Amino acid sequence: MTQASDAARAYSRANGERFLDELKEMLRIPSLSGDPAHAGDIRRMAQWLETHLAGLGLDRVEIMETAGHPVVYGEWLGAGPSKPTLLVYGHYDVVPAELADGWQSDPFEPVVKDGKIYARGATDDKGQLFVHVKALESYLKTAGAAPVNLKLLLEGEEEVSSPNLKPFIVEHLELLRADVAVISDTSMRSIEEPAILHSLRGMTYIEIEVHGPRDDLHSGLWGGAVHNPAQALAEILARMFNADHSIAVPGFYDDVVPLTPEERAMIAKTDLTPEQYMASTGVPAVWGDAAFNIRERISARPTLDVNGLWSGWSGPGPKTIVPAKAGCKLSCRLVGNQDPHKIFELLKAYIESLTPPTVTVEVRLLTTGKPALFPFDSPAMQAAARAYVAGWGAQPLFTRGGGSIPVVADIADLMGIPVVLMGFGLDDDGLHSPNERYSIEMFQRGIETTIVYLEELAQM
Amino acid sequence: MTQASDAARAYSRANGERFLDELKEMLRIPSLSGDPAHAGDIRRMAQWLETHLAGLGLDRVEIMETAGHPVVYGEWLGAGPSKPTLLVYGHYDVVPAELADGWQSDPFEPVVKDGKIYARGATDDKGQLFVHVKALESYLKTAGAAPVNLKLLLEGEEEVSSPNLKPFIVEHLELLRADVAVISDTSMRSIEEPAILHSLRGMTYIEIEVHGPRDDLHSGLWGGAVHNPAQALAEILARMFNADHSIAVPGFYDDVVPLTPEERAMIAKTDLTPEQYMASTGVPAVWGDAAFNIRERISARPTLDVNGLWSGWSGPGPKTIVPAKAGCKLSCRLVGNQDPHKIFELLKAYIESLTPPTVTVEVRLLTTGKPALFPFDSPAMQAAARAYVAGWGAQPLFTRGGGSIPVVADIADLMGIPVVLMGFGLDDDGLHSPNERYSIEMFQRGIETTIVYLEELAQM
Repeated sequence: MTQASDAARAYSRANGERFLDELKEMLRIPSLSGDPAHAGDIRRMAQWLETHLAGLGLDRVEIMETAGHPVVYGEWLGAGPSKPTLLVYGHYDVVPAELADGWQSDPFEPVVKDGKIYARGATDDKGQLFVHVKALESYLKTAGAAPVNLKLLLEGEEEVSSPNLKPFIVEHLELLRADVAVISDTSMRSIEEPAILHSLRGMTYIEIEVHGPRDDLHSGLWGGAVHNPAQALAEILARMFNADHSIAVPGFYDDVVPLTPEERAMIAKTDLTPEQYMASTGVPAVWGDAAFNIRERISARPTLDVNGLWSGWSGPGPKTIVPAKAGCKLSCRLVGNQDPHKIFELLKAYIESLTPPTVTVEVRLLTTGKPALFPFDSPAMQAAARAYVAGWGAQPLFTRGGGSIPVVADIADLMGIPVVLMGFGLDDDGLHSPNERYSIEMFQRGIETTIVYLEELAQM
Repeated sequence: MTQASDAARAYSRANGERFLDELKEMLRIPSLSGDPAHAGDIRRMAQWLETHLAGLGLDRVEIMETAGHPVVYGEWLGAGPSKPTLLVYGHYDVVPAELADGWQSDPFEPVVKDGKIYARGATDDKGQLFVHVKALESYLKTAGAAPVNLKLLLEGEEEVSSPNLKPFIVEHLELLRADVAVISDTSMRSIEEPAILHSLRGMTYIEIEVHGPRDDLHSGLWGGAVHNPAQALAEILARMFNADHSIAVPGFYDDVVPLTPEERAMIAKTDLTPEQYMASTGVPAVWGDAAFNIRERISARPTLDVNGLWSGWSGPGPKTIVPAKAGCKLSCRLVGNQDPHKIFELLKAYIESLTPPTVTVEVRLLTTGKPALFPFDSPAMQAAARAYVAGWGAQPLFTRGGGSIPVVADIADLMGIPVVLMGFGLDDDGLHSPNERYSIEMFQRGIETTIVYLEELAQM
């Protein structure tokens, strides 16, 4: 570590109280992106960030309009063209929160208790995006310069699926150009076990509808000679898995990048016991492809799940009909290098091949998301690993996230750069739930780790 | 045929216009059993029947109270103890009808058009129960006596599932004692093809619920190691049928009375072509157990149908969950001599045997109904057949009804007598629909056939 990063880290510690006060200011703004009534608060939040970033001495700070809520863009390019440029992505919008939902205090009036700050957005993502802002400040207010160039892309629509982010990136590719991107919007199991995500799952989400008779039929007058559509749907779904719980769709696994022995050894360190999995979910027994351990199944392997079912009568009591149709929602979580559209075609062809002539089937694509998989031996990833050792005080694990953050694949695809997911949250931060919280120690360690990371990146 | 029945038939023809006017009086009373606001109309209808029957010279006419709407009971026992006694069951209540539902005229102001009388209850069941009243009148006003003793049991709750009929029968077994019962509350395909039902299907109606995780799970964080309850339910349902579309529940067919070659030959006469079945239902192809023809499958064989399905998210768009549970309604139509409670136990045991340890299952009984099967070579049935030849002018077919009329099994079981289902309606009378109608020719032929039937019964 250099003197510059040591000074920056000391500054961040010395100013920890003020940083927290500033974070509280952010948390007091109810920047709900999904509620038109809060459009003014979203705008106020963007303006707060603009003012705040401008005060830190960035070269350029701008509220940039989109078809929806604006992007706050900031850049500091003082490291010069010989140094790498880091793109920081974060989001300043939040999901709704009401005291009545079970909050112990006003969700938009932050309270500090037992080393945690309680407020909507504390961990998701105001606290985590602020880590990067404060790391940059710590350099600019000490050495007067950061080791690398920085570009901040802070959006206000993440909680409503970022409908305008991809067009924004496409339109501003040149402005956003960078060597690596970093996102802090995820979490780790415990403070002692920092983790860098190097993969997220993608998605193909479909709707299947099986049609039989024109209308619901009286089961007494017609039952026995009609292929019940709910029955037919069940028969199709029952063939989605092989006996070993692998997915039966032909070609489904063709493009899956195999797990290396090295990665499997790393994943094994974070595996869950069946008892842990059962305790967390409440299931009576663990299920799935026995060729893979539980952690692999829920993060590194593709999945297929029925998300919803409907047909005929579901109210109280009996109704003696043969339903006219039956439907389901079905989605696959995908891993590198599965293509969501190719998977849709495979699913559709398989479902159609399973459909007997006694019913008709409709397979509709609802949504897709690309998986993201970054090699963890790349310079940007290894720089992050070193930063954790020095800044956090622990060797991080490279792990795979089972969920999907579409922006990750978008940045990787559109900009052609790796995305490093340095999640500074904790798994039990309660994001999207009542009493969302963020550990002040995580906040402080996140800032220091980021300070070191910028330095490590400079030597990349 | 005797002089007595000839005279009675002549009387019924001569008084046809008046009979129709009286039927219109009945149809003007909106005796909706399901709507408390019409309780007064139900009472008015019962009183109208009481007054009318008393005017015909019955020995006894009485409005008898139940826990719900009253029974109108009438008897004429003048044939004496050496002659058989016939119990006539009918119902004077109707389902709702509103002009706005698509009626071309006020549903409670009967209109005659093209030989049909249009009104709610015209065929179901005021017109058909009146057939028996007018047949009796035709004897009493000519010969002064009928060939057999008659008991009329007219209830006011059939359209709300007859909650008080079974207790009423149990309480009044001695009063109602008879040798045979007749019910006219069903229909035939065309006026040229009279039919006597000798069987109705029973029912076992269950609800299945499969439980997996405690709550809905995030499919990205947990998917891959949990047996999705909707998937598990589909896998269970997919095993309800064998490859030949017979029902796979062990023991399901054990108590089914085999169809005789004689009955199969009779059923073949009313079989539907696949094209007819497809046109009526709109299905793309016929389905079912190929060992039986279509008519057998929909009326003489037991069935199993999913009546409803539910799980997780069924609203618009995607929701990426593993649902906590999945459920379905499932019912079997049963035939003689299947026992609905035994079938429930078989279903439950089979479903539980199919349930893997990765989920839990709950199988709940919702409702049961016994099947009814009467040999068509019994004296009462053969008397009815002869009555159609003489009174209707065509040889009737003995057919099986695919639906369920619980009172039939109740009368048969509690009173130990056969029930003859002489349906004088037409399949396209539109019962329970707008513009319900009853053919005046069917009404007249029904009266004459019943007149002959009473005479045939006397010689039984």
